[in-house]
Amino acid sequence: MGRTAIPDIVVSRLPLYLRAINRMEEEGLEYISSHELGARLGISAAQIRKDLSQFGEFGKQGTGYHIPFLKKQLIRILKVDRVWDVAVIGAGDVGSALARYQGFREHGFRVVMLFDSDPAKIGHTINDIEVQDVAQMEARITEAGIQIAMLAVPAPVAQEIADKLIAAGVRAILNYAPVNLAVREGIRVEHIDPVIHLQHMTYYLMPRED
Amino acid sequence: MGRTAIPDIVVSRLPLYLRAINRMEEEGLEYISSHELGARLGISAAQIRKDLSQFGEFGKQGTGYHIPFLKKQLIRILKVDRVWDVAVIGAGDVGSALARYQGFREHGFRVVMLFDSDPAKIGHTINDIEVQDVAQMEARITEAGIQIAMLAVPAPVAQEIADKLIAAGVRAILNYAPVNLAVREGIRVEHIDPVIHLQHMTYYLMPRED
Repeated sequence: MGRTAIPDIVVSRLPLYLRAINRMEEEGLEYISSHELGARLGISAAQIRKDLSQFGEFGKQGTGYHIPFLKKQLIRILKVDRVWDVAVIGAGDVGSALARYQGFREHGFRVVMLFDSDPAKIGHTINDIEVQDVAQMEARITEAGIQIAMLAVPAPVAQEIADKLIAAGVRAILNYAPVNLAVREGIRVEHIDPVIHLQHMTYYLMPRED
Repeated sequence: MGRTAIPDIVVSRLPLYLRAINRMEEEGLEYISSHELGARLGISAAQIRKDLSQFGEFGKQGTGYHIPFLKKQLIRILKVDRVWDVAVIGAGDVGSALARYQGFREHGFRVVMLFDSDPAKIGHTINDIEVQDVAQMEARITEAGIQIAMLAVPAPVAQEIADKLIAAGVRAILNYAPVNLAVREGIRVEHIDPVIHLQHMTYYLMPRED
């Protein structure tokens, strides 16, 4: 079965499973049932079994999933059994926080480049990463063969920079700018926008009367 | 029809529609077809029509959706026709960026409180918001009737702080800590974790051979 046959919604849950499995391993657990995993994630046990069965036979009736084995399989499936180099564009609050974030390395990623257009920022280092002139971005990324970028620039310039990143060989963009990006087929874009999540939740809230 | 009858996956798309509609309004557009909206969002026109039809008759055959009208309806449905007070817990890189972020106000939110446990941070202000001692968190949040919190604390303390937030009346948590939170029914939690998004994308990438 080709990998393209697996629905993206299933793929999108695998990192959540891996995160939960990592946590369970830290807690010293060795086996986990689909029920326990589901209870932690708010996903039904049946859904978890169905999702994982698309990739192989990872669990046993009765004993459940062997945590180190399932972890290894998820890491392999998600291709984070290596370290991916990542470029961050924008050295403002968000870009700086991403450059400093310690949680990438153990999960398959490292920030190796940081770009900004502000002369006051260029040449400074954040977490030992030099802020480079965004004018050099395409050349540097092409040269390094970087495929993943995190975009933390103002909304009005996000599309233009995304186009340049893609021209430079980037295939996956994590977009922090609050704007949808138009990209050609084969390019992956994920968005992080707190407003989207907050508005999703307010739908369910009852405003207090003042 | 009760609002609980609408699938959450549909609700989760409404903020994306609103964001796109806002952008189109800024561009000076007055009408938009479901096809044009779909093309911008990478969602089928049929899906958009089906989603929106769950909430009323917002479009007309031939002319499509009147942008100011659809915007007003989405704002009402998502309950962001008011400004929600939000508390930020954690005044590190992420919490500080959230306190400074200018994009909340025009979309229905304002950060009014910021808490941290670090004596070096308590008493300082970020974007005119004083960093308060997290020991005061429950009392302050209860007193102010705040229902929404953004959690930007280290993973090991996230669950404990979430429990306290919920005890203080918080009903919606946007969680930046890389850990799943266990909450009782009726409490909304959304997660923002860049690793989850990056791992979702690497599934589709072909590693370069070095």
